[in-house]
Amino acid sequence: MTSVTTDPADGFSRLAPQTGTHVRLAPGDVLTLLDPTGVQVSDLYCVSADDVAERLSSGRSIDFENTISFTTGSRLWSNRSRPMMTVVEDTCGSHDFLLTPCSQQTFDILYPDLEGAEHPSCFANLVGALEPHGVRRDDIGTTLNVFMNVWPDESGELHIDPPKSVAGDRFSVRAEMDLHVGITACSAEKSNGGVCKPIDWQVTRAGS
Amino acid sequence: MTSVTTDPADGFSRLAPQTGTHVRLAPGDVLTLLDPTGVQVSDLYCVSADDVAERLSSGRSIDFENTISFTTGSRLWSNRSRPMMTVVEDTCGSHDFLLTPCSQQTFDILYPDLEGAEHPSCFANLVGALEPHGVRRDDIGTTLNVFMNVWPDESGELHIDPPKSVAGDRFSVRAEMDLHVGITACSAEKSNGGVCKPIDWQVTRAGS
Repeated sequence: MTSVTTDPADGFSRLAPQTGTHVRLAPGDVLTLLDPTGVQVSDLYCVSADDVAERLSSGRSIDFENTISFTTGSRLWSNRSRPMMTVVEDTCGSHDFLLTPCSQQTFDILYPDLEGAEHPSCFANLVGALEPHGVRRDDIGTTLNVFMNVWPDESGELHIDPPKSVAGDRFSVRAEMDLHVGITACSAEKSNGGVCKPIDWQVTRAGS
Repeated sequence: MTSVTTDPADGFSRLAPQTGTHVRLAPGDVLTLLDPTGVQVSDLYCVSADDVAERLSSGRSIDFENTISFTTGSRLWSNRSRPMMTVVEDTCGSHDFLLTPCSQQTFDILYPDLEGAEHPSCFANLVGALEPHGVRRDDIGTTLNVFMNVWPDESGELHIDPPKSVAGDRFSVRAEMDLHVGITACSAEKSNGGVCKPIDWQVTRAGS
């Protein structure tokens, strides 16, 4: 692990390793996720603040953007086929939009060496961030997994490699509607080069 | 288009082009989808009959099966990380689990030459099949698009080619819990070699 000896850059807040938070965005606000160490994933999920039943849809986003590689210019669409966010900055270029957030069951099912021990997870952190705003845990679906390095080979098999992000890499999204957003510093050691590290984040308000 | 002059095979029912239906499955029941003409997609979605908030999750299925290529032996998982179905037969080997079903917005957004005209869609057909059983339209997410030929190239861009299915190809799933299932004969001309055709289906009850 790269040690994190510095404070977050000016204007940024820091998510401790294996935590998450809620962010409220108005249209035009820009949320920036910054990897302070490199090799660290941040999961992102969002719902409409006007009606939380309208929520991020990987399937519609992949369909309308015609790609599984989301980067600057890509829009993130809702289950009602409306743009929720637009990616406005991406210094890394490698993210995942195929997988649900890591959950207790991820660790139970995919990491049997953990023997079912309770483990922090992005899912639990997103529930903690979004449930107070009326989002049902059943409705937290596939997340945009920023900096996560997932690729299918020709057979369709998935490979989850260490993130390509380096210290200081940034990924910014502009809100296209009023949103409740949940973000995390991902809790799965194996997706983060072996060690879970922090994530820094900042909101630039529209017009500021 | 291959003309469909024959009736469905013994024991099969036929979905007319651009239609869908509801199927109720008990654990162990096997649902077979058969392409009577070749080059035709059938979208499949399911929810738990005990609690319709538990529903098919492409993201958890892709995660737990570690693939985007679902075939014999693959399990389809719920948003609560439980197996809903297991694929028990697949004579085609080419299906999609990335995209949401075609919807009116698919045609509005991706096919502007249609000028917003009302168009049959898998989404509307799945709403018709599942809403009477308590499923909210917002909760019909990414479908398993049986026989749909979707592949990402190295850049991540998606390619939607004519289905590889030939007349008589079969895809069968065994229910692992009590399920409400929606199935369609896909309504999107461009995903089906230019012409929307029927789909045949059959349920073999457990123990029969």
